Amino acid sequence: MRLDALARTLGCTLEGDGSAEVTGVAPIETAGPEDLTFLHHPKYLQHLATTRAAAVIMPPGTQSPPCAILRHENPYLAFATALRLLFPEKPRWTGVHPQAAVAATARLAPGVAVGAFAVIEEGAEVGEETQIGPQVYVGRGSRIGRSCLLYPQVVIREGVMVGDRVVIHSGTVVGSDGFGYARDAQGGSHKVPQVGRVMIEDDVELGANVTVDRATLGATRIGRGTKVDNLVQIAHNVVIGEGSIIVAQVGIAGSTEVGRHVTIAGQAGLVGHLKIGDRTVIGSQAGVGEDLPAGAIVLGSPAVPHMTAKRIFTAWTKLPDLLRRIRKLEQRLGVSTDRPDEEEPRR
Amino acid sequence: MRLDALARTLGCTLEGDGSAEVTGVAPIETAGPEDLTFLHHPKYLQHLATTRAAAVIMPPGTQSPPCAILRHENPYLAFATALRLLFPEKPRWTGVHPQAAVAATARLAPGVAVGAFAVIEEGAEVGEETQIGPQVYVGRGSRIGRSCLLYPQVVIREGVMVGDRVVIHSGTVVGSDGFGYARDAQGGSHKVPQVGRVMIEDDVELGANVTVDRATLGATRIGRGTKVDNLVQIAHNVVIGEGSIIVAQVGIAGSTEVGRHVTIAGQAGLVGHLKIGDRTVIGSQAGVGEDLPAGAIVLGSPAVPHMTAKRIFTAWTKLPDLLRRIRKLEQRLGVSTDRPDEEEPRR
Amino acid sequence: MRLDALARTLGCTLEGDGSAEVTGVAPIETAGPEDLTFLHHPKYLQHLATTRAAAVIMPPGTQSPPCAILRHENPYLAFATALRLLFPEKPRWTGVHPQAAVAATARLAPGVAVGAFAVIEEGAEVGEETQIGPQVYVGRGSRIGRSCLLYPQVVIREGVMVGDRVVIHSGTVVGSDGFGYARDAQGGSHKVPQVGRVMIEDDVELGANVTVDRATLGATRIGRGTKVDNLVQIAHNVVIGEGSIIVAQVGIAGSTEVGRHVTIAGQAGLVGHLKIGDRTVIGSQAGVGEDLPAGAIVLGSPAVPHMTAKRIFTAWTKLPDLLRRIRKLEQRLGVSTDRPDEEEPRR
Repeated sequence: MRLDALARTLGCTLEGDGSAEVTGVAPIETAGPEDLTFLHHPKYLQHLATTRAAAVIMPPGTQSPPCAILRHENPYLAFATALRLLFPEKPRWTGVHPQAAVAATARLAPGVAVGAFAVIEEGAEVGEETQIGPQVYVGRGSRIGRSCLLYPQVVIREGVMVGDRVVIHSGTVVGSDGFGYARDAQGGSHKVPQVGRVMIEDDVELGANVTVDRATLGATRIGRGTKVDNLVQIAHNVVIGEGSIIVAQVGIAGSTEVGRHVTIAGQAGLVGHLKIGDRTVIGSQAGVGEDLPAGAIVLGSPAVPHMTAKRIFTAWTKLPDLLRRIRKLEQRLGVSTDRPDEEEPRR
Repeated sequence: MRLDALARTLGCTLEGDGSAEVTGVAPIETAGPEDLTFLHHPKYLQHLATTRAAAVIMPPGTQSPPCAILRHENPYLAFATALRLLFPEKPRWTGVHPQAAVAATARLAPGVAVGAFAVIEEGAEVGEETQIGPQVYVGRGSRIGRSCLLYPQVVIREGVMVGDRVVIHSGTVVGSDGFGYARDAQGGSHKVPQVGRVMIEDDVELGANVTVDRATLGATRIGRGTKVDNLVQIAHNVVIGEGSIIVAQVGIAGSTEVGRHVTIAGQAGLVGHLKIGDRTVIGSQAGVGEDLPAGAIVLGSPAVPHMTAKRIFTAWTKLPDLLRRIRKLEQRLGVSTDRPDEEEPRR
Repeated sequence: MRLDALARTLGCTLEGDGSAEVTGVAPIETAGPEDLTFLHHPKYLQHLATTRAAAVIMPPGTQSPPCAILRHENPYLAFATALRLLFPEKPRWTGVHPQAAVAATARLAPGVAVGAFAVIEEGAEVGEETQIGPQVYVGRGSRIGRSCLLYPQVVIREGVMVGDRVVIHSGTVVGSDGFGYARDAQGGSHKVPQVGRVMIEDDVELGANVTVDRATLGATRIGRGTKVDNLVQIAHNVVIGEGSIIVAQVGIAGSTEVGRHVTIAGQAGLVGHLKIGDRTVIGSQAGVGEDLPAGAIVLGSPAVPHMTAKRIFTAWTKLPDLLRRIRKLEQRLGVSTDRPDEEEPRR
């Protein structure tokens, strides 16, 4: 692809020879003379002067590498578009594999692919151009929209609704039972039947080995355009708004409602029955135990506002020094030090 | 179902018209005039005055909604029973699917179901009325009890013993090798063969994408009636007592023994070789590095008794203020502040 | 096996009757008179005096149990070798199962096993003596080396390179898309195509339900001999050096480079774009947000050097007492206490 055509399509300002061609894409430090690359994270600025790439997508007003430049306010976005142009998606599977088990009452729209050893149970529906990969399971009465992509070994349990253009990665389970038990007076656990459903709205992407439990009653719901990374746990009756980002290994406990355009970083945990406002940002490994207003930015376990958290973390690393300084003050004043705290609980 | 009959079956006191009928169950805020609902968590009290439900299961001595009431000391337990009455479990799979691969020496008791593309290896045994879902794997010589339910894509490796009425959700792996390597003087890792087994006792339920490793020697064991949520890691030679509750994303390291009726909340971690007493409660995201006596309630990482933890968390959020107050005291006394801590380690 | 022969093979010094035979291996507390056992963790010293084992592998210079002793400087390593002698690995699957779906252009070397309902896509290659278990998926153009073992329900996506003698446990997904989205000005998320690959080098072992994402560009790479436990998340473009140990539920975010012989304990998290030096040790539940030099030992979230961390944790448990002591000092000096902190941020 010629650079001038590429610049036009991406909405970039071109600096350099527009007639040059790029045939591939590579990281800035390994790119060769026919590769396009991009500069996104400041850690890679060091490689700019020595890159052998044909062209770099980068923001306006920054240094000039020894190659053509495609300037864009949002280089990562332009780069994503360039990748789609250079690596157009082709269907991975086509047709219904003779070794798939599709129930008589399942309805497959035109253009649906079903891979080898996939199972589509009675009454399930799959929309146009959707690809059901090999070894996938789609339960009774579930409905998958159009142009979806379910990678090998996804499990969709019964009664799950999946919108259009949804992508679900391997090993992910949608619609497993919520974790609900009623305790009797003797401490025995009695399962609460989980008779609700799951709704995955349009343009959602779920990573690999994610778990999304079905609701006890009603529906667990993931809003339009929300992206979920690997190994995330979404419990029964959780509702996640549109356009949110849930990073790997996050856990969201039952009935918590997460707003729109929320970001939850890796390994954070949210207890149940919370309301998390729109545009909230929750830091990695944070532990959220209370409702959060819209726009809150929190860190820590227990989670606190991020400006407070940064000061707490700074003080936390100085704790041994604080202890020493208190001892010194106590010596100066002649008060007894380190005496057992009479308020200390016994257990 | 008539309300008077329902109340009798559930052991509830009925307030209202016993001849009314309920046909469904719904959350309190969306229930319609033929629905039963329940009040369990105080956050939903606000919906009580405006609910359109036919009847609410709720505790004695609380407010009266504008509908019939089924009073019960344990509304969640009564609700669980009501759900089982209104949504009786039917078998999901019946018979042995012609596209299952069942080894010649595997023994299937009467009434066993084996789904499409399931694999039952040589010498495995499956008890009466157990349902082996589609795409499940049961390894050589493993024994599954009666009336179990293995959802699609469960893996049971060889030599695993599963009791009766056990439920295992999709994506869960039982009997994978424990993580054991012996290091040589050069830092090389030599695998320690994991030749032990796993025993899952009666009435256990394992969530989705759980991992339970086989023992190095002996057995990893999960006690009768214990319930395990999604994405939990149970390492080799772990022993969990009866009636415990292990919430999502918990990790329990090798050889740790967890007692009976223990509760471990989400994302908590336990190091190896511990003894955790009966009825212990471990908070979410806690990090347990020491044995815990029976009845302990701990929070935090490192975990401390919960009353202490609450006071620590309160003080923790005040750390920047503590630092300011110490500085002020130092100024008042004329002692030098913030000087480098000579005890600070160099690395 | 006779004890004198065993001692010779393991390089142990024998104390006791070399003509005695061992037929099995068992934990020290349950071993019977024909069993070999070993002493590795000091917690099990208590069982030494009463063990019924035929022989114990243990270090020199320690107590003498009432049975034969095989002394070795590294008892765990000697024990690993003994287990391999007594329980030699046999192939689990042989031949290509008639119900496997192997593409016409896939190349299987001599001695390859492919289990029932496994899928090998076009252009994939599998090396000599490798066992592809039942229900495994190997994507288009992927290359698996020789003498590998892929347990049931592993997913290897397209374009993944796996070295020789690699073991991958059930439910693990290699090559799922990295979690990369470019945000537009309206907050919409646009998928960045993940067109890179994954390279798993020789002698790596991956536990169950692990996720290893493919690179955006270039390769996600796991170095020779590295061992990864269950439920670990390895994001796109992560590079892990040789001989490292990654314990269960660890998460490593995108583009982070982990050195050689690094140990990362359970549930620790590393943010993206870091460089972690060789021989680093990262404690369980640690949160690493900065580069670490070679040989660092860190604990805590945020992670700090372990000697500092231990002092911080000690001070942390005393926080309520520190607060009391500061109050007492303030009273003594007559300064106001607990007044609102005017520096407190507003949000």
